[in-house]
Amino acid sequence: MPDKLLRMERAGSGPSRPVMLAIAGDSAAGKTTLTKGLVEALGADRITSLCVDDYHRYDRQERKGLPFTALHPDCNYVQIMEQHLQLLATGQPVLKPVYDHHTGQLTRPELIEPTKFVIVEGLLPLHTRLSRACFDITVYLDPLEHIRRDWKIKRDVSKRGYTPEQVLAELDKREPESEAFIRPQRSAADIVVQFGPIATRHDPPDTPLSAELTLRPTIPHPDLTGVFRESDRRAMHLKLARDEDGRPVDALHVHGYVPREESRLLEKAIWTKLDTETELPSSLGQIGEGVRSEPLAITQLLLLYHMLDSVR
Amino acid sequence: MPDKLLRMERAGSGPSRPVMLAIAGDSAAGKTTLTKGLVEALGADRITSLCVDDYHRYDRQERKGLPFTALHPDCNYVQIMEQHLQLLATGQPVLKPVYDHHTGQLTRPELIEPTKFVIVEGLLPLHTRLSRACFDITVYLDPLEHIRRDWKIKRDVSKRGYTPEQVLAELDKREPESEAFIRPQRSAADIVVQFGPIATRHDPPDTPLSAELTLRPTIPHPDLTGVFRESDRRAMHLKLARDEDGRPVDALHVHGYVPREESRLLEKAIWTKLDTETELPSSLGQIGEGVRSEPLAITQLLLLYHMLDSVR
Repeated sequence: MPDKLLRMERAGSGPSRPVMLAIAGDSAAGKTTLTKGLVEALGADRITSLCVDDYHRYDRQERKGLPFTALHPDCNYVQIMEQHLQLLATGQPVLKPVYDHHTGQLTRPELIEPTKFVIVEGLLPLHTRLSRACFDITVYLDPLEHIRRDWKIKRDVSKRGYTPEQVLAELDKREPESEAFIRPQRSAADIVVQFGPIATRHDPPDTPLSAELTLRPTIPHPDLTGVFRESDRRAMHLKLARDEDGRPVDALHVHGYVPREESRLLEKAIWTKLDTETELPSSLGQIGEGVRSEPLAITQLLLLYHMLDSVR
Repeated sequence: MPDKLLRMERAGSGPSRPVMLAIAGDSAAGKTTLTKGLVEALGADRITSLCVDDYHRYDRQERKGLPFTALHPDCNYVQIMEQHLQLLATGQPVLKPVYDHHTGQLTRPELIEPTKFVIVEGLLPLHTRLSRACFDITVYLDPLEHIRRDWKIKRDVSKRGYTPEQVLAELDKREPESEAFIRPQRSAADIVVQFGPIATRHDPPDTPLSAELTLRPTIPHPDLTGVFRESDRRAMHLKLARDEDGRPVDALHVHGYVPREESRLLEKAIWTKLDTETELPSSLGQIGEGVRSEPLAITQLLLLYHMLDSVR
C-alpha cells in the first residue's frame, strides 16, 4: 500500500456518521415487523434498513450438500458483513449482496447509502466483537419459543410456499445452530424483548401478547421510575431484577391488555425526556391489518428514543 | 458511530498490505494479455488480479436507454470501486460485483482476497484521485489507435459474437468518452506502453510490433543507462525525452525484431538490479499460441521488477 493513501485517509474528515441500531434474533422472531414501524415513524429519507441475512456464502442449491444450515457463521461472509457494517457506521455506502428468498439464489447486489439512522436486522448482526462494535444500540428479539414457532409456520406457509411439516422439520434441523450461534447474541444486547403470554395467568388464546423488556444499563435508558412510582398500575410495571446471567437489569413489563390511556402515559413519559419538537409518532405498534399491539408500540418508542438520543 | 468502533480501528495492527499495480487502458488495449503473463510469472498463490469493469451500475439492457456508454464514470459505481481499492490496498477482502460479458447481466458477486501482489486492470482504475492513491505502480496501455481497433475487432468478433461492422460502430460511439475519461488517465501513469509499428520504417504487415515505454520519474526505475552506454544497439535504445505534456521522461524503445540474445541482455540487467534469488521467469512475452513478443516480455519484466522492488 502506498503512503499517499495513508496520508489521504488521515487527512479526510469523512462523511457524517449515522446512528446504528442492530435488531438480532432467530428466524420469525419479529425483526421485520419491529423494523417496519421504526422506518415508518422516521421516514425513509432519514432511515436506512438492511438485512444481513443477504451475506450468504452459498445459495440454496449449494447448501444442500453442506453439513450446516444458513444460520451457521461458516455459511455466511461474516468478515464482509463486518466490513460493510464498519463502512456504514462511518457513513460510507456499500454494495450489499442480495439473496433472493424466493429462488434461493444469490443475485445482483444493491447500493446501500446510509442516511441519518441505519437499522441492521438479521440472524447474526451481533455475532462477532467487531460487528457488535459497529452499533450504538443493540436489540435481541427473544419471543417464547412456542410463539416463534407459530409465527414461523404462519409466515413460511403463507408467504414462502412451504407446508407446516416442512417448517417444523427445518426448525428441528436448525435448533443446534440456533443454540450455538443465534441465542448467544442475547447477552450482547442493550435491550432484550420477549413477547409471549403471561406465564402466571391463563388467558384465552386470543389475548394480545405481552412483552417483557430487559433493559441493560449498557446504554442510558430514560428514567421511568417516576411513571410507576405512585401508581398501582397492573398492566405495566418496572422492576429491578437480575438477568439470566445474574447481571442487574430493569425489567419493564407491558401487558397485552394494557388500556390505551395507560400506555399513553408511558409513551409521553419516554417522549418528553427527549426534549424534541418532533411529535410522538402515531404509526407505532402495527402488527398487520390494522391490529395494534401496545407492547410493540412501547418497544418501538423506546428504540426511537434511543436513536434520537444518540444524535444529540 | 459508536466510540468503541473508533478505538478498535485505532488499536488494530491490521493485515499485511499488498503491492498494488494498476493497468489502465481502453477496450482491447492489451490489458488482459499483459496481466496474464505477470500472474503466470508470480504464481496465483502470490498474485491476485481483478478487473474493475465489473463495477457497472447498469446492465446491458438498462444501458440501452441511457445517453452514455459503459466507459462513462456515471455508468459505474466509481465510489464503490474506490472503496474496494482502498480495502484491497490495506489487505482486506472485498465482495466484488460481477458483470457477465456474455449475457450483459450483473450477477452473483465474488470474494476477492488480496495476496502479496494485486493487479487491477480495467477502463477506469486511475480515474479519480483516491483510486490513483491506492496504487504503488500505475501503467497506461496506449497502443496506436489503428492497432487497438484491429485488436478489438479481432477479439469481439471471435470471442464475443459481434460482426466487424458492429464493433466499428461501437468504437465510434465510444470515442467521445474514450477521449474524455479513458485517455486522460495516461498522464497519471508511471509507465506508458505504446505498441505499434515503427513510424519511420515501412516494414511488411507481419513484422512483430515494437513498443515504446515512457518511464516517468514518479517511481524509481532501474538504472539502465549502463546497458546502452557502450553499445550501438539498434533494436533497443533509451533516450531522455519530453512527454506530450513537456515533462521529462526516459523513452525506452524495444523494436519488434530485436534478437533474443540482445533482449536477454536487457532482461538480465533489469533482473540483477533486483538482487533477488528468484530466477528470471521464462513465461513472459506470450501473446497466444506460442508466439512471443520481445517488447511485451520486457514490459512485463519491468513491471515484475517494480512489484518485487516495492516489497523490499
